[in-house]
Parts: sequence; structure tokens; C-alpha cells
Amino acid sequence: MLCETSHPGNIGAAARAMKTMGLEQLYLVNPQRFPDPEAEWRASRATDVLTAARICASLDEALQGVGYAYALSARTREIAVPSVGCRIAAQQAVEQALNQPVALVFGNETYGLTTEQVNRCDRLISIPANPEYSSLNLGAAVQVLAYEVRMAALEPEVVAPARTLATHEEVEGFYAHLEQTMLEIGFLDPQHPKKLMPRLRRLFARADLEQEEVNILRGLLKAFRNPVRRP
Amino acid sequence: MLCETSHPGNIGAAARAMKTMGLEQLYLVNPQRFPDPEAEWRASRATDVLTAARICASLDEALQGVGYAYALSARTREIAVPSVGCRIAAQQAVEQALNQPVALVFGNETYGLTTEQVNRCDRLISIPANPEYSSLNLGAAVQVLAYEVRMAALEPEVVAPARTLATHEEVEGFYAHLEQTMLEIGFLDPQHPKKLMPRLRRLFARADLEQEEVNILRGLLKAFRNPVRRP
Repeated sequence: MLCETSHPGNIGAAARAMKTMGLEQLYLVNPQRFPDPEAEWRASRATDVLTAARICASLDEALQGVGYAYALSARTREIAVPSVGCRIAAQQAVEQALNQPVALVFGNETYGLTTEQVNRCDRLISIPANPEYSSLNLGAAVQVLAYEVRMAALEPEVVAPARTLATHEEVEGFYAHLEQTMLEIGFLDPQHPKKLMPRLRRLFARADLEQEEVNILRGLLKAFRNPVRRP
Repeated sequence: MLCETSHPGNIGAAARAMKTMGLEQLYLVNPQRFPDPEAEWRASRATDVLTAARICASLDEALQGVGYAYALSARTREIAVPSVGCRIAAQQAVEQALNQPVALVFGNETYGLTTEQVNRCDRLISIPANPEYSSLNLGAAVQVLAYEVRMAALEPEVVAPARTLATHEEVEGFYAHLEQTMLEIGFLDPQHPKKLMPRLRRLFARADLEQEEVNILRGLLKAFRNPVRRP
């Protein structure tokens, strides 16, 4: 929900930010200029969110039927509602949204939400911005909140696709091959081995070698000893 | 670092996004229009970030002295670097930045980063966006990453890692040395290179090479070409 937005470009940017994070229901409370070509342009391929936007005459009207509302505001004086950090807020919002509509409410670009508007909401969200310059652009603030909501909805976090790692003995075979080759070429001095093998082991251990990579590395070691002469 | 940005407004939006999250060092690689009044306007009170921006002719120039670079890209085909989710990436970046410069690299609004540019970086960052519309506005993407970096920096448990990583140019120097040596011994066939270099880059990228490790590996390559005959 965007309240009293001045610049239509910011409405478009908010629509795009929402759609990239899988959110669709945009409410506009007294937008100063809407619809507007600038909004369409900034929405890029999220014009469907603009088209479906509901325009309301007051925040109370927009909040009809909403079970829980979060207000984004830098205002803290005379605020009656408890504040909550944006990450926790997003996690709570995702849980609450399973049972009822939840709203995220944003104010005007210059003066934000009024005290009265914030007090209509259940929680005040704070983004931990730079205290010397904490003024996020409206579209950027919507992007951060929408992103946090999506991250919360995707929990538990998806991990990288499983790779097929080389077995213990395959990796040990590579290390033995490497050590033998380094001895042969005189790079590893058996009288003064220093920490060479342990260092190289640590390096390759961090890489979590795959089977095919072990094969490539051993092929490379072999080629060093028996270069292929190409025509 | 913003590469080949088309719209100056997005440069301004990025500067504002950075400053609200306490970041200041903006690098512009071949911006199409900069400086520009549109950038100033969208930067709002972050024009100091624009004024201090460094303009570079290539990504390699921008990455001089950088210890670790994260690329933001939707491109995943033919990418040699491992990918990482944006939250984890931000946490790692904050730790790494205690010891060395760390870069976040963003591409052009339409075509993103080239495969070659992404492969110049150490990790590919993915933002878990809506698969049906995953195209964040450039300024919005900078806002999300800058926000995650700030959230990570505000975590109390950030401690310095013990390792000092090799710089971008040191690692690239190793790759060039490795490729040249493999060509010389006939292991890499220039007519049929297959995916050998990308695979090896990916392997070593995962290991996050230290300076001393790069020296050991290059010493090893040298020794292969000029074996030391011990008595």
C-alpha cells in the first residue's frame, strides 16, 4: 500500500519491485498522478500489477479486511505502535499471511506516513539504514521489503545443487600422484619438504573436488611428464 | 561497480541506494552517459557518491587491487565461477572486506554482464527472484545487495578471516600461466579446447586462492617446464 505518492515513476518502480519478488496486490491511497505513462515505463514488464492496482480514498479504506499491517516510517515520535526490524517483520508477515491478509504500508516520498496513519497499523518497521542518510527511494524501500518477504517465504533456504564429489580414495590418489610428480621434477625436496604438501592439500580441500576434476588434474600431471607433441 | 550502464538515472539511484546503506565507493565501467543531470536528480542527497565515482575503461581496470569480486547476473550458462545466494554472499563479503577490497559488480540494464566479465569475478550472486519475472531494476538490485551488506555488517559476530586472498590480477596471472603451460605440453588443444579452462577456473575459484598459494602453483608450473635435478 502506497499512500499519497507524489511521483508516478515511483509507483511503477514499486510495481516492478513487487512482481520480481512474487507480490501482486498493489493498493494506492490517494496517488497524486495515476495512471501515468511514467508509471507504466518504470513498471517495465510489471504493468499487470499497475492495471490491477486498487485505488482508495483513505488508508482505512485500503486496510478493510486486513488482519495485520506493517508501516514503514522513519517517524518514531508520538508513535503508539511497537517497532520491529524489517527482517523479523517479513518473517512474521509471511506466517501471518497464511491465515489473513497482511499489508505493508508506505508513505509519501517527502513526508512519509502521518502519525495517525502509522497508528492505524499494528507494527512500525525500521530498516537499519545509514543514520547520516537514511532516506531510501520509495521504490527501493518497497524492493527491500518485498525481497525480505520473499526470502522469508523461501525458508528454509535452498542450497546449491548437489555436486558429485570425488571419493576419499580418489582424492588421496590425486595427492599421491601430485607428490610423486613433484618429487620427480625436484619441486618437492624430500630433505626439506617444508609444508608444501599440507598447503596444497588444504588448497584442494577447500575446492571440494569433483570426480571429473580429479581426472582432469591427474591427466594434467601425466601430460607434464609425457608432453603430447602436436603436429 | 556498474558496467556499461545505459541510463544515468540508474547510476543516480545506485548512488543513493549505496549511501543509505553506508557504502561510498562507486566505480563506473564505460557508462553510456555520465555525468548527467538525471543521475544527479535520482541520487538525491547522495551526489557526493557520484562526484567521487571512479570511471574505468574496463572491468579489469576497475578490479585492480580487488581481493574478491562478486558478479550479479542472471546468466548461468558457460559460467566458470561458483554461484552463491545473496545473503551468504553479503556475509562473506563483509568478512573479506576486513582484509582486502571487495567488489560487487553489476551489468548493463538490458544484457547484464557478459560471460567474460562474470568469469573475471570470484563468485556469481543470485537473488532468489520470481522465476516468471526476475528482472530487478538496476538501482533496486544495488539496493538489495547494499542492504544485505549492511545487515551483515551489523551482525555482531563478524570476525576477520585469517587468510589474505590473492588479488584479481594475481589470480588472472596464474590462469594465464596455467593455460600457456598446458598449451606448451599439448594438454590443451587450441583446436578443441573443450571446457578445460572454464573447468579449471571453477575449481580454483572455489578454493579462494591465497597469495602464497598462487606463488606455489606458479612455481610448480615453472618446475614442470624446467625440472630441478637434485644430486
